[in-house]
Amino acid sequence: MKPRILIFSHGGLAEELLKVAYDITGKKSGVEALGVYRCQSAESVKSRFSETVERLVREGSLLVLTDMLGGTPSNITMRNLVSGRMEVVSGVNLPMLIVALQKKDTVSDVKELASVVSRAGRRSCIDCRKEMGV
Amino acid sequence: MKPRILIFSHGGLAEELLKVAYDITGKKSGVEALGVYRCQSAESVKSRFSETVERLVREGSLLVLTDMLGGTPSNITMRNLVSGRMEVVSGVNLPMLIVALQKKDTVSDVKELASVVSRAGRRSCIDCRKEMGV
Repeated sequence: MKPRILIFSHGGLAEELLKVAYDITGKKSGVEALGVYRCQSAESVKSRFSETVERLVREGSLLVLTDMLGGTPSNITMRNLVSGRMEVVSGVNLPMLIVALQKKDTVSDVKELASVVSRAGRRSCIDCRKEMGV
Repeated sequence: MKPRILIFSHGGLAEELLKVAYDITGKKSGVEALGVYRCQSAESVKSRFSETVERLVREGSLLVLTDMLGGTPSNITMRNLVSGRMEVVSGVNLPMLIVALQKKDTVSDVKELASVVSRAGRRSCIDCRKEMGV
């Protein structure tokens, strides 16, 4: 089974990232977005996350892309890992998400997918004038 | 003069990133967000960008954080560099933006700020289970 992907962020960031990535790649499915909003109780956030993860993991493996290590979405994810079938990559940005969308249908091992997308994220953070000699 | 910061992205990504980063840090100013939407003409996007950059650069130096190298916001930025007073970092994510917000009042050299925030972005893209041994 192909890995499923969940973006989990503060506020509407996950949803906006997904909207832009779908728009750029022309893809329309295979990724879900979930946000933590101030108005929600901790209990409701946790239960929405657990329901989503249970549903997605049931279908195979799951890669969770969180916005920031140490933030609430990342903390909830790390405290609720489903052993052996769930990987987590922090620091999601647009290039990382686009690579995840492009690779999820060909890289079936979720550990390998996590490694590929985290590397793509790191490589995309470029100090342009310095590194490109402009 | 302290460097000014502009986030320039596809769609509402820049705005959503800024909303979340302000919410987390408690800061409320010093950064602007600009988006490229499909409904806008290339001319109108370019002129909004130029007006914003001119206004911000007039006050000192400017760091532009773009969502993705090779994307429209990044291409527009790289074609309209203001020599010596403007740096560009691609791959903006939440940790990068938070570091930019935290450092912009103490790191007055825009080249140094670009170097610091690009490094923060790269370090934040973590394959959590592998790199943290969870």
